[in-house]
Formats: sequence, structure tokens, C-alpha cells
Amino acid sequence: MIILGLDPGLGTTGWGLIRAEGNRLSHLANGRLKTDSAAPLPRRLAHLDAMLAALITDHAPDAAAVEEVFVNANPQSTLKLGQARGVVICAAARAGLDVGEYAARLVKKSVVGTGNAEKAQVHAMVTRLLPGAKIDGPDAADALAVAICHAHHLASARRMF
Amino acid sequence: MIILGLDPGLGTTGWGLIRAEGNRLSHLANGRLKTDSAAPLPRRLAHLDAMLAALITDHAPDAAAVEEVFVNANPQSTLKLGQARGVVICAAARAGLDVGEYAARLVKKSVVGTGNAEKAQVHAMVTRLLPGAKIDGPDAADALAVAICHAHHLASARRMF
Repeated sequence: MIILGLDPGLGTTGWGLIRAEGNRLSHLANGRLKTDSAAPLPRRLAHLDAMLAALITDHAPDAAAVEEVFVNANPQSTLKLGQARGVVICAAARAGLDVGEYAARLVKKSVVGTGNAEKAQVHAMVTRLLPGAKIDGPDAADALAVAICHAHHLASARRMF
Repeated sequence: MIILGLDPGLGTTGWGLIRAEGNRLSHLANGRLKTDSAAPLPRRLAHLDAMLAALITDHAPDAAAVEEVFVNANPQSTLKLGQARGVVICAAARAGLDVGEYAARLVKKSVVGTGNAEKAQVHAMVTRLLPGAKIDGPDAADALAVAICHAHHLASARRMF
């Protein structure tokens, strides 16, 4: 199955697509969706939505996954992130995808083996787990990490039931 | 022109449609869009999005308006509201509508004449400005208030330019 990992943000949303066959993972694509910070909020959200819809149409993933967000101390930043996150999750759900949501600790544990891993360790392990992937920056790396976490979660769920 | 006012929320989104002809306002419809609190977040957001898309198709408004939000002290509530608000604003923008955003004080000033008005005064004035409107609760009243504010703003903008 193809899993789309997403790291939502109003300015930059990271995305990563992997193929999971049992415990075997392979990299398909990754990148960033950017919106114009000079444009009004409604246009930025609609643009983000349109880019995601096109991505989903092009790659036909079977499932999506996002990280649970760290709630920022700054309420205006939290609101802004929430608005982008709502659009991203909705675009995936509207396309019929189930959207898994994982705590940051679980993503780190899944990728590195410990929930306390540093960001750099996570990115290094993403590169190791997906040989040949050329990763388009930290947002795309985070998106691939949550896709890997979802793949592990599905694999262990299959073992359990 | 037909203006769609929106009061976004994950559980309940209020909406109100008015017709504005110069300074003349009339009520068209209002109501609430509700999502199932027992459903997972992605399904709730996609449901909200689908209900709004149907509303916009049915009533063909020319513009939309939302209130700037009071940023809640509770970050989790702010995130939740932000997610719903992102979907609501995006649904309007995706349908090609311009979305006006107004500070709460401006909405009150526009409807009651003072930015310090109580909620009950705002609702009483909405009923007076839109005779015959049967208002479906406080969220729909807030949505009608922001639609009225947008109508006033457009009318004064026309006078100015």
C-alpha cells in the first residue's frame, strides 16, 4: 500500500510518499507545498487544498498520516497552524483516505527506536530506512517519518489481529 | 448581492445568508451545520466541508464573511477551532468567493453602533435589521451579524471610492 505522510503548515506543508509491503518500505516521492505569504489567508488555504488534491490524484495513496501537533505557546501561531492542519486533514479525508494521527514521541520511537530522539537522528534514520530518497528539507523528512510510523503501526496491527 | 456569514466551529458552524441591495438588507436563510462529536476528526472536517459546499451550491452567494476569532486561552481549543475555521474559509475560497474577515468589535459596531455591545444586544439588533428572520440559535445569529457587517463595509467602500 501507498502511504502519504503530511507535515502541515500554512507557509510550507511537507509531504512524503512511501510504499509499504509488510515490513518492507520503499520511498516513492517527497516534497513541499508552499503558499504565498503575501496572499490573503483564504487564497492560501484554497491553494494548499488544490495542491494537495492534485498530489492525491497523481499518486493515489491508500492512506494518510499526520503527526499530532505540538501546541505552540503563541495562540496566534496555534490558530494559524490549526487552520492549515484542518485543510490538510480535510483534503485527505475528502479524497476517501483514512488519516492516522500519531504522537511525536511515537513517530520518533517508530523511526529511531526511542521517543527522545533528536530531530537530526530522525532525519538520518529516515534516509537509512528509505535508501535512495533525496529528501526535500526538514518538513518533507518529518512527513516521511510519520508515513513510516503509520506503516509500522499497520504492520503491527496486522500481527495483532 | 448575496452574502454568506459564517461562524466556524468543529461541533457547530453557524451560517446566515442575507441579500444586500445598497443599504437595504433582507434575510434569506440561516442555520447550523453540526458534526458528530463521536466521529474521528478527519471525518468531521470532511463532513463540515461537504455540508458547506452543498450550502454554497444551493444558495450561490456572491461573497462570504467570518469574524476574526477570539483566541482562546486553552491551546487545544484554539487548535480545534483553527482546524474547523481553516476548512470553513477554504470551502468558501475554493468555491470562488471572496472571504471578508472582521474584528468582533467592528461586527458589534456595525450591527449595534458600539464595539462594546453585549451579545444579547447584537442578537436583538440582528432580528430588528432582518425583519421576519427566525434565527436558529446564537451561532446563526453571529453568522448573520458578520454578514450584515460585510454588507455595511461593502456599502461604505462603494461610497468611498
